[in-house]
Amino acid sequence: MAPEPLRTLYWDNGSLFLLDQRLLPGQISYLECRSAAEVFAAIRAMVVRGAPAIGLSAAFGMVLGARHLAAEGLSGPALRQQLAEIAARLRSARPTAVNLSWALERMERKLEGAAGLSGAEIAAMLEEEARLMLHEDISINRRIGEHGEPLIPDGASILTHCNAGALATAGYGTALGVIRAAVAAGKRVHVFAGETRPLLQGARLTALELRREKIPVTLVTDSCAGYLMASGKVDLVITGADRIAANGDAANKIGTYTLAVLARQHGIPFYIAAPCSTIDLSLEDGQGMVIEERDPSEVTTLMGQPIAPAGVGALNPAFDVTPAEFITALITERGVLYRPGRAGLAELMGKE
Amino acid sequence: MAPEPLRTLYWDNGSLFLLDQRLLPGQISYLECRSAAEVFAAIRAMVVRGAPAIGLSAAFGMVLGARHLAAEGLSGPALRQQLAEIAARLRSARPTAVNLSWALERMERKLEGAAGLSGAEIAAMLEEEARLMLHEDISINRRIGEHGEPLIPDGASILTHCNAGALATAGYGTALGVIRAAVAAGKRVHVFAGETRPLLQGARLTALELRREKIPVTLVTDSCAGYLMASGKVDLVITGADRIAANGDAANKIGTYTLAVLARQHGIPFYIAAPCSTIDLSLEDGQGMVIEERDPSEVTTLMGQPIAPAGVGALNPAFDVTPAEFITALITERGVLYRPGRAGLAELMGKE
Repeated sequence: MAPEPLRTLYWDNGSLFLLDQRLLPGQISYLECRSAAEVFAAIRAMVVRGAPAIGLSAAFGMVLGARHLAAEGLSGPALRQQLAEIAARLRSARPTAVNLSWALERMERKLEGAAGLSGAEIAAMLEEEARLMLHEDISINRRIGEHGEPLIPDGASILTHCNAGALATAGYGTALGVIRAAVAAGKRVHVFAGETRPLLQGARLTALELRREKIPVTLVTDSCAGYLMASGKVDLVITGADRIAANGDAANKIGTYTLAVLARQHGIPFYIAAPCSTIDLSLEDGQGMVIEERDPSEVTTLMGQPIAPAGVGALNPAFDVTPAEFITALITERGVLYRPGRAGLAELMGKE
Repeated sequence: MAPEPLRTLYWDNGSLFLLDQRLLPGQISYLECRSAAEVFAAIRAMVVRGAPAIGLSAAFGMVLGARHLAAEGLSGPALRQQLAEIAARLRSARPTAVNLSWALERMERKLEGAAGLSGAEIAAMLEEEARLMLHEDISINRRIGEHGEPLIPDGASILTHCNAGALATAGYGTALGVIRAAVAAGKRVHVFAGETRPLLQGARLTALELRREKIPVTLVTDSCAGYLMASGKVDLVITGADRIAANGDAANKIGTYTLAVLARQHGIPFYIAAPCSTIDLSLEDGQGMVIEERDPSEVTTLMGQPIAPAGVGALNPAFDVTPAEFITALITERGVLYRPGRAGLAELMGKE
């Protein structure tokens, strides 16, 4: 039996526990967050990362905030006002992944029907909603896996980037969920994990997840992708996404766009696996996406050691945007959308 | 005044001194090689790297071998036989860069006219030839710079990969030589240096060279290239090469091909700057190129620290091949060859 996947986050006894992904693979350690402010700091510092996982973390951040405010006797409009400020703060922790906004909006919608409830009742209601979202996320990922599994041929050699796995979600994963579903269906696969500089989520997290489940994985540098494809070693590329615009343009970890260009050059399918909560119909296209710029020291150092001469500047965009035309199909919990575009996405989002 | 560039290698008092590039940028330290075997080990371990620099190092390795053999009283056919074995060994240190073979063949041609000379005379003759090659390399690079300079617009934002600078040659550099020539001509430039995983020659060496000469440089991860080009931040790409086939296909550091595909996708010129000693007319095309596979630990660790779970395998090709169709122009000491192809390369190599 494969070991149980690592739990990315869990709620226990009034605290949110986050697996500290900065310490993986060397150390398995959980950070206890007791306040919305601690959740904010953990999201910003990338203790927890991955679009669905940060959305869920923020939802529990709202629960923690509500509990504290209720304990101080707040209720009614004053409580709702304070919670709106907490939501705004949490939303600002990282700008690119829309799942953060999505989760917070869902919590705020719950609040709208809460007039007349006590602070404690509101906190309990939010906790119930956040727990529901946590459970839903896993079942959403399993449905993504079911829909995507037929796209993976037996014997496929698959290139993925960053970590769109159990560690990016409540469990099972999006892109890695599709791979897990293919393995569960008895298919043989081999995964090339791009290491994903600067923070090495591919090397540290994807390789860890796959190795724990004995799914064959080979680590490569990000710049190896062109060579792999030109050598016929890649049958398909699959990644997650952090925000998908109404026309299908998709933001994901820096380097994803490069893989999409290479895949098209070599006639290789390029798939994105993501929940519908990643789709942002309010954005016309990728032009409007805010790309988070992170600290240059993530590029100029590695695990605390300098790798460049002192004083050299670096540019560190955390994401790039892949135009819809490069995406062979978008795999969601509601089905597979080939050549995602405006009409298809609108229809997908109109479904129940 | 800009500081003198670091000396990549020099010959002094019967020893070859190699700047230990594995220790840069933190430490400037020279390794003294007293035998061909020590030169072989230094090339293989990448104490010295860069196609022209390893060719020159191997030439001095031959000198060291000849001096030792002469000191043991060898001469005539026995000496030449032993030197042929030393050359074969040096040639095997790294398989992809043809400059290594080119330099050794040039030394062996000198030997052909050496019948009747004593061992000491042969050693002196080889030393003279190796010193000549060292001086020629710098003047070749300056001519590459002169020919390439007009291709760099004033204000250009330039993306380069790995290190094709003074540290890859006897001095001045190939791709960075073109950039130096543009700066010397009064042009303003800005360089994006791709860090070049796994061994980070861009971060450690290119950033160091440019910073020492106050040429503006910004470090980026390799996977940032697509984002930079899509954002309009790159006006041209320029790299070196390790071997160029008769049809113009060019091997260079892993990741170069990816940059070439991206450049074409964005309508950005992609230049290769290399001496004619990098051109191998004996190879029809890139299919026949041997791509060196290096130790997976270069990918799974960084500066001695593991970055992936224990036991995860990695693939570590050191080079990839850029088909000629992606190369806007080849910049050599004999001139600029646009859209390099079989006829143009044959003509270039026929010139004196």
